[in-house]
Amino acid sequence: MVRSMHEFTDETAALSDAIQVLTRQRLEHDQPLDRASSPDALTERVGVTITPEGIGGEEALRIWAEVLAPSTLSTDHPAFLAFVPGAPTKASVLFDVAISASATYAGTWIEGAGAVWAENQVLGWLAALAEMPAESGGCFVSGGTAGNLSALVAARHAASIARGGKPPTGWRVAVAESAHSSVASAGRVMDVELLLMPVDDGDRLVGEAVRETLAGRDDVFAVVASAGSTNAGVIDDLENIADACEDARDWLHVDGAYGGAGLLVPSIRDRFRGLGRADSFIVDPHKWLFAPYDACALLYRDPAMARSAHRQEASYLDSLNVSSEWNPSDFAEPENDDRARAGDPRPDGLRHPLRVAKR
Amino acid sequence: MVRSMHEFTDETAALSDAIQVLTRQRLEHDQPLDRASSPDALTERVGVTITPEGIGGEEALRIWAEVLAPSTLSTDHPAFLAFVPGAPTKASVLFDVAISASATYAGTWIEGAGAVWAENQVLGWLAALAEMPAESGGCFVSGGTAGNLSALVAARHAASIARGGKPPTGWRVAVAESAHSSVASAGRVMDVELLLMPVDDGDRLVGEAVRETLAGRDDVFAVVASAGSTNAGVIDDLENIADACEDARDWLHVDGAYGGAGLLVPSIRDRFRGLGRADSFIVDPHKWLFAPYDACALLYRDPAMARSAHRQEASYLDSLNVSSEWNPSDFAEPENDDRARAGDPRPDGLRHPLRVAKR
Repeated sequence: MVRSMHEFTDETAALSDAIQVLTRQRLEHDQPLDRASSPDALTERVGVTITPEGIGGEEALRIWAEVLAPSTLSTDHPAFLAFVPGAPTKASVLFDVAISASATYAGTWIEGAGAVWAENQVLGWLAALAEMPAESGGCFVSGGTAGNLSALVAARHAASIARGGKPPTGWRVAVAESAHSSVASAGRVMDVELLLMPVDDGDRLVGEAVRETLAGRDDVFAVVASAGSTNAGVIDDLENIADACEDARDWLHVDGAYGGAGLLVPSIRDRFRGLGRADSFIVDPHKWLFAPYDACALLYRDPAMARSAHRQEASYLDSLNVSSEWNPSDFAEPENDDRARAGDPRPDGLRHPLRVAKR
Repeated sequence: MVRSMHEFTDETAALSDAIQVLTRQRLEHDQPLDRASSPDALTERVGVTITPEGIGGEEALRIWAEVLAPSTLSTDHPAFLAFVPGAPTKASVLFDVAISASATYAGTWIEGAGAVWAENQVLGWLAALAEMPAESGGCFVSGGTAGNLSALVAARHAASIARGGKPPTGWRVAVAESAHSSVASAGRVMDVELLLMPVDDGDRLVGEAVRETLAGRDDVFAVVASAGSTNAGVIDDLENIADACEDARDWLHVDGAYGGAGLLVPSIRDRFRGLGRADSFIVDPHKWLFAPYDACALLYRDPAMARSAHRQEASYLDSLNVSSEWNPSDFAEPENDDRARAGDPRPDGLRHPLRVAKR
């Protein structure tokens, strides 16, 4: 029984056939219109699934296809307009399928070179689109929350180095009232206070509000602006905000998780002016870049600084330190998993992967 | 062109056929023996992939299959013994494929009821295995790092409520010298100091060391113990550590990311005695529970407390607050994404999903 778990048996072949049919149907036909159910109703319909003998793949698939999938909304349904819907292309879904079957780990170069190379192509394209410098770089994380948290951890690290440690009254991060809830969440996790900045009549953060907030303070390590707020799609006054941050020597993080894809829309592209001066920037490809759930692209202007903030060390990982290739897990917090990197910070030895095309 | 991105065309059908063949081959035959390549070599072999017209799915698949996949290690190869290898069963890979094609979001009940129900079955099974109480609950996150961070954020929140705020000298977390690097990483992110506890000659944290560390302190909000350390597989003296934590009224977090699956091994099961008294516990199913990369099961003894620590609020999400069903995104930090929950904490209204069987 245990042996067959890892072997391709007749049972595996039958399950593979059935799942291929299901997958093809899902791609070829209209998305099903699903409906949530109550826990009790599901329990009644499904019964016991975890047993000493196991229920087998065929029965598990029947339960999924007949009961659980119809109770799980298709977030790509054309009528699903709640929250932030997904709209993956057919091709992106198919490549997700291919990756599911390939046991890749793209957290380090030594293990995931091909996948990391491909990711870096996309990051380079996004950096160019945002008009960030060619030295920019980063990684993909699971979503905007992880992206905002990782960027702010790097920002605090940079401020701590530049200012010789934590201010006596603790660190603060300046955010617009309109910022996404995940920024407040990052503040709680990091144990930093939020300085709320007022927005104008159009719900827009402008440079003057940032200047007034930062004036006379040395406890602010970052300013968070939106490139398309999640609640209302507002793009802040990035150019003047960047000026204010530059004058105050503060890190500018731009949250474009929701709206960053607007960079590709000629009629609104001008509104993003100043984005290229951000110290960090995120955009979620699972939104208007038509990738499957879920992905957040995280870019840093100074990836060596970000790496020194996020790197992990562990003796079982020492061998990862022999090269200076690009290890995505070095650039974000919740992605720093099993293969977290070992060794001392070596920002000088960081080999930069991006070939950012001039636009 | 744009229209066809979301329609099932002849080109989609051909790509689907090709990817189904590739997927089947990957399942049916031995894992390929891959080898990392240099960035320059990959760039030279692949050329430009992001163009205004797009290279098309067929060419993208050729590049993946011929160049990038062979440069991306198969972490399930029987000869891949570096770091922490994966060993997904054939069935688990096939279900990963099925999910890839179904555009599910399992962060909230209203959107992902069927998937959340299935996840809760597994969490209930794991809670019973760990001998945690029937009221335990939690969610899945991307890996041990996110699990440890989320658990410690909940622990600090609980201590802050119990002790009326942050101690004047700041919070500390007590960890064994042998703890995983992600615990130190969580400490940096949370801006809390680590109190390192000595281990015995067998690299094991024992109750006495915890007592000595906690004596006379009120700034420690959690003790982190290992149920199978990642470096050496050491299971700490959980029973006596639980006694020490109970006496000091400190949160006990047990990191079983690597070793927790040992609970299923009769010959070593005794060594986990005391685990059931943990306030939080993690185990990674992508390790010895044979799931694909990557997943971490995160369990809390008091999920209502965890929820009040992790919940996000956003006006575009108010409608999620109409029910008291189980929303996984309420229980962890980096998973609190687009659909982060809205509204006030309502721990009393939390409907508990687990039917934890008595073992």
